Amino acid sequence: MTITAKNGRATGSQLDEQLAIDTIRTLSIDAVQAANSGHPGAPMGMAPMAYVLWTRFLRHSPTQPSWPDRDRFVLSAGHASMLLYSLLYLTGYDLSLDEIRHFRQYGSRTPGHPEFGLTPGVEATTGPLGQGFANAVGMAMAERRLAAEFDRPGHQIVDHRTYCICSDGDLQEGITAEAASLAGHLRLGRLIVLYDDNQVQLDGPTAWAWSEDVLGRFDAYGWHTARVEDGNDTEAIAAAVGAARDDPRPSLIAVRTVIGYGSPNRAGTQKAHGQPLGADEVRLTKQAYGWDPDLDFHVPEDALGHFRRAVPHGEELVAEWQARFERYAAEYPAEANELRRRLAGRLPPAWADELPAYDAGTELATRNASQNALQVLGRSLPELIGGAADLSESNLTDIRGEPDFSADEAGRNIRFGVREHAMGGIGNGLAYHGGLIPYLGTFLNFSDYMRGAVRAEADSGAIPDLILIATGSELQLAVSARVELESEGIRVRVVSLPCWELFAAQPQAYRDEVLPPDIGKRVSIEAGVAQGWERWVGPDGAMICVERFGASAPGVHIFAQFGFSAEHVCEVARGVLTGKLRGVVAPVPDHVAPGDPT
Amino acid sequence: MTITAKNGRATGSQLDEQLAIDTIRTLSIDAVQAANSGHPGAPMGMAPMAYVLWTRFLRHSPTQPSWPDRDRFVLSAGHASMLLYSLLYLTGYDLSLDEIRHFRQYGSRTPGHPEFGLTPGVEATTGPLGQGFANAVGMAMAERRLAAEFDRPGHQIVDHRTYCICSDGDLQEGITAEAASLAGHLRLGRLIVLYDDNQVQLDGPTAWAWSEDVLGRFDAYGWHTARVEDGNDTEAIAAAVGAARDDPRPSLIAVRTVIGYGSPNRAGTQKAHGQPLGADEVRLTKQAYGWDPDLDFHVPEDALGHFRRAVPHGEELVAEWQARFERYAAEYPAEANELRRRLAGRLPPAWADELPAYDAGTELATRNASQNALQVLGRSLPELIGGAADLSESNLTDIRGEPDFSADEAGRNIRFGVREHAMGGIGNGLAYHGGLIPYLGTFLNFSDYMRGAVRAEADSGAIPDLILIATGSELQLAVSARVELESEGIRVRVVSLPCWELFAAQPQAYRDEVLPPDIGKRVSIEAGVAQGWERWVGPDGAMICVERFGASAPGVHIFAQFGFSAEHVCEVARGVLTGKLRGVVAPVPDHVAPGDPT
Repeated sequence: MTITAKNGRATGSQLDEQLAIDTIRTLSIDAVQAANSGHPGAPMGMAPMAYVLWTRFLRHSPTQPSWPDRDRFVLSAGHASMLLYSLLYLTGYDLSLDEIRHFRQYGSRTPGHPEFGLTPGVEATTGPLGQGFANAVGMAMAERRLAAEFDRPGHQIVDHRTYCICSDGDLQEGITAEAASLAGHLRLGRLIVLYDDNQVQLDGPTAWAWSEDVLGRFDAYGWHTARVEDGNDTEAIAAAVGAARDDPRPSLIAVRTVIGYGSPNRAGTQKAHGQPLGADEVRLTKQAYGWDPDLDFHVPEDALGHFRRAVPHGEELVAEWQARFERYAAEYPAEANELRRRLAGRLPPAWADELPAYDAGTELATRNASQNALQVLGRSLPELIGGAADLSESNLTDIRGEPDFSADEAGRNIRFGVREHAMGGIGNGLAYHGGLIPYLGTFLNFSDYMRGAVRAEADSGAIPDLILIATGSELQLAVSARVELESEGIRVRVVSLPCWELFAAQPQAYRDEVLPPDIGKRVSIEAGVAQGWERWVGPDGAMICVERFGASAPGVHIFAQFGFSAEHVCEVARGVLTGKLRGVVAPVPDHVAPGDPT
Repeated sequence: MTITAKNGRATGSQLDEQLAIDTIRTLSIDAVQAANSGHPGAPMGMAPMAYVLWTRFLRHSPTQPSWPDRDRFVLSAGHASMLLYSLLYLTGYDLSLDEIRHFRQYGSRTPGHPEFGLTPGVEATTGPLGQGFANAVGMAMAERRLAAEFDRPGHQIVDHRTYCICSDGDLQEGITAEAASLAGHLRLGRLIVLYDDNQVQLDGPTAWAWSEDVLGRFDAYGWHTARVEDGNDTEAIAAAVGAARDDPRPSLIAVRTVIGYGSPNRAGTQKAHGQPLGADEVRLTKQAYGWDPDLDFHVPEDALGHFRRAVPHGEELVAEWQARFERYAAEYPAEANELRRRLAGRLPPAWADELPAYDAGTELATRNASQNALQVLGRSLPELIGGAADLSESNLTDIRGEPDFSADEAGRNIRFGVREHAMGGIGNGLAYHGGLIPYLGTFLNFSDYMRGAVRAEADSGAIPDLILIATGSELQLAVSARVELESEGIRVRVVSLPCWELFAAQPQAYRDEVLPPDIGKRVSIEAGVAQGWERWVGPDGAMICVERFGASAPGVHIFAQFGFSAEHVCEVARGVLTGKLRGVVAPVPDHVAPGDPT
C-alpha cells in the first residue's frame, strides 16, 4: 500500500500545523547546538510524523503520565531524543523549556538518550539500536495479556496501543528481526511502528551496507506494511496510521524523510546525523523555515497553544476511563482490586508462604528447584509471565497448567523461539508496561546473545579455619568437601554467594559476618573464569576455576578432569591452609580440544 | 522455485545411495546412544542432503584437508555434529570409527559440538545457533577478496564455494538475519545454504513460536531461494544445488525433512531432537531401514567404498589445482609467493617497522592512535581487512585510499551496517578461511551485541611508593596525577594494562617486575565496574570505578563528577598511601539519572 500526498490549500489549520512541526525542529536544533553535541538531523526529519502521531492518535495525558490505559510511545531511535523532549515539553508534561536548554547537561532531565524513570513521559530507556523496538513488542504483549485477564463483556478497561518510531539502524539490528518475527507470529495488531526511512546512517548512505526490501521482509513476518512517500505529508501519514490501526496485524509504516530537513548544506547527508549543525547553518536553516535566525529556543505562542490542547484532552480521556473503571469496579470488585494491586506493583501478602524449603544437603538439580518455586509463585503471583528461548524443556520454565501466549490466547507461557536478544528486550518491555512481572530462561552460554538487553542493578559460626565459597551446582562439592575436611579436624564454613552485586550492597557488618576479614583462608569453586572472585577470596585464598575453553564428555567425568571434585577441593583447601597454594587453580588436563584461533 | 521428486526405478546406484545415506543415519544413532547424550534426529533427517552435497558437489580432499582452494562446509547446526563426524570418517578424513565410538567422550576428537582445530575437516566451531551461518558469510567474503587480489586473466587459482547447513533455530537468531542481509547486499553468489526445514525445535513444533515466510524473507534480502519438498529426494536436492550454483545471488534452499526420519515412535517430534532414541527405539529404527538391529556401528563395505571414492577424487582435484598454481607461479612469481606467505599465515619481515612511536605524555585520542597504526599496517599487511558496524567515522577504522567491499568490488573496507553480532561472526569466518587478517570496530557499549561471537584466548621505573594502573583514555589521568604526586615527593609508577588475560599469561618474573608483589599501594583507574581489578590491585589498593549506570553531560564534566580527574586520583592515592582508603572508590554524585528498573 502506497499513500501519496493530497493536494490542498494551506488553511489556517495547516499553517498552525507547519508552525508546530517547525517548533519541534528548531527546539531540537537549538538544544543540540547549545549542548555542542547530539543528533539534530533525525528530529528534523521525523517531526511531521511525530506531530501527527502525538496530536491525532496518541491517547495520553501529559498531566497524568502514569495513567494506566495510556497509549505507549517508544522512541527506539533514542539518539533522536530531542524529538521526544520537544514533544514532552510542548504537550505539557512536567519538563520545562529550561530543561530543554540544558540538554545533555549534568543533572538535567534531558540526557543524550532517554532514560525511563528520570523524565516524565519517557516509557523506555533507549539508545542502543533495536532495544526500543523489542521493548515495544513486550509492551504490546503486556497490553494483550492484561486485557485478556481483566476485561469483561461490556467493560474494556485495558484498551490501548503501542506506538514506536524506529530508524534504519534499528531495522539492521538482529534483535529487531527476532522481535518482529515474534510480533508477526503473535499478530500483535495493537503495535504500530513508524520507520524513519531517511536513507542515511552514521557512515554515509544506507545503500553502502543495506539494500534489502525492508517492507518485503516485514510482509514475510506477517506484518501489515505501508509506505508514505513524503514524510512532510501529514495527511498521508495520518491515513497510513489510521489504516494500521484498523489492521489486525502489527504494522510497519515506512515514511520517506530527509535527515536534517531544511538545512541548506546538510540535509540528506550524514553530516546532519550526529553533530550540531554549527551556528551559521543553524541561522540558514531557521531562515529556510521562515523563522527569525536571531531567536534561540523560540516557542511561538500559537504553536505552544496548539500543542497544549493535549492537556485538557488528556484529562478528558482519563476522566472517561475513570468513570469506566468505576462501573467495572462496581460489577467486578475483586477484579478491580486485583488490577489496582497489580498496577501499583504491590505483591500480595502471602505470596511467598508456600515456597518449598529444603534441608541442607538435599540433592536437587537447580533447574528442578527453580521449577518447583515457579509453580508456587505461578499460583500466588498471577502477574508472573515468561518463558525461554526454545529451552523450556531444559530450563523448566513453564508454569504448569497455564496456556501458551499465542496469536489466539494470551497465556502466561511465552514461546520465544531461539531468539535470546529479543527475549531480553521483550522482557524489559513487559516490565516497563506495568501490571506484570516477567521471567526469562536460557543457558548461561547463550545469555551472551541477550547481553545488550540485560541491565541489572542491586537496589538494595565457632570461628572457621577455612571458608569454601560456591554458587549453584558447585555448592554440593563444597558441602561434600566440608564433610571430609571436618573429619580431619578442620573447621569449614560453606558460603553460598549467588550474587556478588547483592552481597556487595549489604552493610559491611553483615559482609564481615559472612566472610570474616581475619579468615583469609578461602577457596572459591566455580566452573567459570576466576575473574571477579579475587574480591571475595583475597590474596591468601585460591580459586578453583576454568581458564580455558571447555571440552566434551559426560558431565561427571569432565567436572572431575577440570578439578571439580570433592577430593580436589579438599586438596586445594589443604594447600591453602598450609600456605602452599593461592590464586588461580585451573587444572588443564591433557587431550582436550584447543579453542578456536580467533 | 519448487523442485519436486522425480519418479524412477531403483537402480543399483540408487541402492548404493540409500545404503550410504542410511549408514550416516545409523552411525549417528549409535554414537548418540553410546554416549547417552546428543542429538540424533537432525542427522537422521539431514543425511540425504548432506550425502548429495558431499558426494556430488563439495570439492574437497579428505587426505589433504588444508588444500587452500577446497570448498568450505560449515555445519551451523552444530548440535547435529554426528552428521559431520560420520561424513568425515566415511569419506576418508583422519578420523577413525573408534573416534565415532567415543563420541562426546573425554579426549576424543568427536566432542558434542564441532571444534575447529581439533578434528580434521571441521572448518568452524559451531553450536550456539547462527554463528556458523555468519562464519560462512565471512568465508564467502574471504574467497571473493582473495580471488580479486590474486586471480589473473586465464588463471583462476582462488575458485571455491562455501556451503552451509542450518536449522530452524539458526534462522530464528538475529545474527543470521544480520548476516543474511549483508550477504544479499554483497551478492555473495558462492554461498549456498541448505536449510533443514524439519518444523521441529527443542520445545516442540516450530509453529509454536514461528510462522514467518522464511523464503519470502530471504527473497527480500536479495537471495536466490528454492524449496525441496521431499528431503529424501536426492535428485531434487541435486537439482536445487545445481541451480543455486548457477545463480549470482547467495542461495537458501529449504529442504523439507523429517527429524528422526525412520524412527517409528519419535520421527517428526521433538523427542528426536536432543536425546538418544533409547535401545529399543534404536532397534526399531534399524529394522525400519532394513538393517540388522543387532549390529552397532556397522559400516557396510559397499557404503564405505562408495564414500571413499572421495579420496582419489580429492587427490585428483588437488593435483589439478597444483598444476594450475605452478603455471600461475611461472607467470606471476611475486603474486604466487605472496599468496604462499598469506596462506601460511606468515607476516612479512618488516611489517611493524613503520609503526608510529610517541613520546610519553603525547596527547592523542586512542582512536587516532589506532587510525595511525592502521594506515601503516594497511600498507605493510595487505591481508588486513575489516571495518565497523556503522561507526567508521567514530572508530576511524577505514584504511585510507582503499575501496569498500561491495557487490561490485572486493575492497578492504567493510561496511557492516548496524549489525554488530554478524560483524563478529563474519570476522571469525574471515579468519577461519585463511589468507586474511580481520579487524573490527564498534563502541565498547555495543560490543555486548556481538559478545556471542567473541572468543578470545591468550596464547602466550627506583622502587615506587605507589602504582597507578589504567588503560586507554584513563591513562592520561594517571600520567597527570603522577606529575602532581611526584612534586609531593611520592615515587609513582604508571602501568598501562590494556589486557588482563595477556598480562596474566606472562611469566611470573615479568609480572612481578611490572607489579612488584611488595608494592601493595596500588590504584586502578577505569570508567567501568571494578570487578576483575581486585586481582591486580590487591587488598591494600583502591579501584576508581563506576558502579552504577552512566549519566549524560559533556565528557569532561561527567568524568570529573564521577571521580575521573587527576585531582581525585591524587586524593585517592594519598588515602591509599596513608592506609585510610582501600577497595572500591565509586563516587555517586547527586542529581544523576537513575537506571531503569529491570
